[in-house]
Amino acid sequence: MKLASLKEGGRDGTLVVVSRDLAWCRDADGIAPTLQAALDDWERTAPRLRNIYESLNAGERSETRPFDVLRCHSPLPRAYQWLDGSGYINHIELVRKARGADMPPSAYADPIVYQGGSDSFLGPRGVIRGDESWGIDFEAEVAVIMGDVRQGASREEAAREIRLLMLVNDVSLRNLIPPELAKGFGFVISKPASAFSPVAITPDELGDAWRDNKIHLPLLVHVNGKLFGKPNAGVDVTFDFSHIVAHVASTRELEAGSIVGSGTVSNKQGGLWGSAIDNGGVGYCCIAELRMLETLEGGQALTSYLRHGDVVRIEMLDGAGRSLFGAIEQRVRALEI
Amino acid sequence: MKLASLKEGGRDGTLVVVSRDLAWCRDADGIAPTLQAALDDWERTAPRLRNIYESLNAGERSETRPFDVLRCHSPLPRAYQWLDGSGYINHIELVRKARGADMPPSAYADPIVYQGGSDSFLGPRGVIRGDESWGIDFEAEVAVIMGDVRQGASREEAAREIRLLMLVNDVSLRNLIPPELAKGFGFVISKPASAFSPVAITPDELGDAWRDNKIHLPLLVHVNGKLFGKPNAGVDVTFDFSHIVAHVASTRELEAGSIVGSGTVSNKQGGLWGSAIDNGGVGYCCIAELRMLETLEGGQALTSYLRHGDVVRIEMLDGAGRSLFGAIEQRVRALEI
Repeated sequence: MKLASLKEGGRDGTLVVVSRDLAWCRDADGIAPTLQAALDDWERTAPRLRNIYESLNAGERSETRPFDVLRCHSPLPRAYQWLDGSGYINHIELVRKARGADMPPSAYADPIVYQGGSDSFLGPRGVIRGDESWGIDFEAEVAVIMGDVRQGASREEAAREIRLLMLVNDVSLRNLIPPELAKGFGFVISKPASAFSPVAITPDELGDAWRDNKIHLPLLVHVNGKLFGKPNAGVDVTFDFSHIVAHVASTRELEAGSIVGSGTVSNKQGGLWGSAIDNGGVGYCCIAELRMLETLEGGQALTSYLRHGDVVRIEMLDGAGRSLFGAIEQRVRALEI
Repeated sequence: MKLASLKEGGRDGTLVVVSRDLAWCRDADGIAPTLQAALDDWERTAPRLRNIYESLNAGERSETRPFDVLRCHSPLPRAYQWLDGSGYINHIELVRKARGADMPPSAYADPIVYQGGSDSFLGPRGVIRGDESWGIDFEAEVAVIMGDVRQGASREEAAREIRLLMLVNDVSLRNLIPPELAKGFGFVISKPASAFSPVAITPDELGDAWRDNKIHLPLLVHVNGKLFGKPNAGVDVTFDFSHIVAHVASTRELEAGSIVGSGTVSNKQGGLWGSAIDNGGVGYCCIAELRMLETLEGGQALTSYLRHGDVVRIEMLDGAGRSLFGAIEQRVRALEI
């Protein structure tokens, strides 16, 4: 099943069911006005939403309209929780090496998780506004939307509560991170609003590509139309979603609609060299990793962070080349005062 | 105006308007079903809620019922954002001294803010469940609920968007904090669900006690019925609410309903000694500060963190001794598996 939220109605948008091929959609208003409302009562709403989904895929066109990504907000335009984990420890190792920060031994035993702002996400085509001096970077990731998880839940219980999957751009302001983390309490101003794929999908949409609580497909990143990364989200996963969620649930419950990110997708590719797309590698899901590799290879970073006017595109295709979630595509612009 | 959310209806509770003396309440259903809904459309809802408030205070009893704190959830049972700042730098200095952590020079220039979990708050009488070995502590604070704040907002703009005030218990697991902060990304498992006062009030309810974006009244903390702290929330404020909000808004907007905490209220009292209630001081709003003082005085901490069965009570009274927000009163118990 595929779901999206159009920029209509109130702050939470309007829930629509989207056909598998992303061509058509139909309002879910009689079932749940918003995605959060559907998640609040999933046992009741999911089967009814699935009925609409099946009729859409069967070619039923009554009350349907063409699905337009440009009218989409993030599937949850705002959420009660956005947590991001360290699923791909290779990314953490590289980025910390880049800023000369230590890697704590505990990072290999338990996920590192940060609590992100969730009151006001950008849409999948939302402009990233900021000063170039902040070091604006993207981080391409996969994410889950959870059902209710009790305090003390096991990894198996956590896995059973995975409701939906999305892609995410966890925007990062690289030059603001070191001074903010030096204060000791994590990210706030250095991680501004994230953006999510137009469509959230149930795990069964992936068939065999969803197993062990991981998505086994390449995550495609383009910058200004040029391929920048295509690492496989199912490779080199240190902590899968069940691990990240169970870790957080050790001291508190998670309520339905909580979004949990995988961390920046990153493949080891056997070593630190030769892994850029230009070198025949699978590339990267953030600029910081490429800059680190450039520094290791030639003594200095060559690729700049995003400039005003730059466009980042994040997408995932199925085996036949069809977009699964629709694309995140965001342009960077100056802040308007 | 005073507002509360009863544990009725859905996950967001049912919004009621509460009389000034906290004796009566009336449903706001015709205006907004939940506090978040009221905040989403405050220009329209606030005047109508205020009409109910004035009729309640004038003795109008149609459609009213006695106000029962035991039926209250936190005013926002879940919120889209919970940020907590370092308003009282004295607290940060003491707690960091206690765990041997450095105080970055930037801590005096800009607020330190952490992003907390907001998907599932405890109610004002909600049980704190956890293991005693975690070092369960309370942190008594004041907090604001904001309207919409644009990215790049000034302190003056931020101050204008303060909608409501509350008290908060920012529960902290002291023994989990050092290993989690060593990972570098801030608090997640070491700061479980917070609880808020039964009632949220508009700043005008405080009269002269609300000025310069600070509450100039003592915050009262009792542990097992014994006075533990009564520091004045308007004294030794390094960063007021406008400063904390404008800092966060530098790189992102804040959406209506965002909760921002002051940080643990803490008065310097001229020095580090003699400031416990038993020594004639104003005491503390968390156990960690008392333990630090004990260590400085006698070489070791004497007061233990909260044990199963312990009760913490947090309240604020007006000049005539009347409760302004109702009391937070929470018991600690073991996690039920």
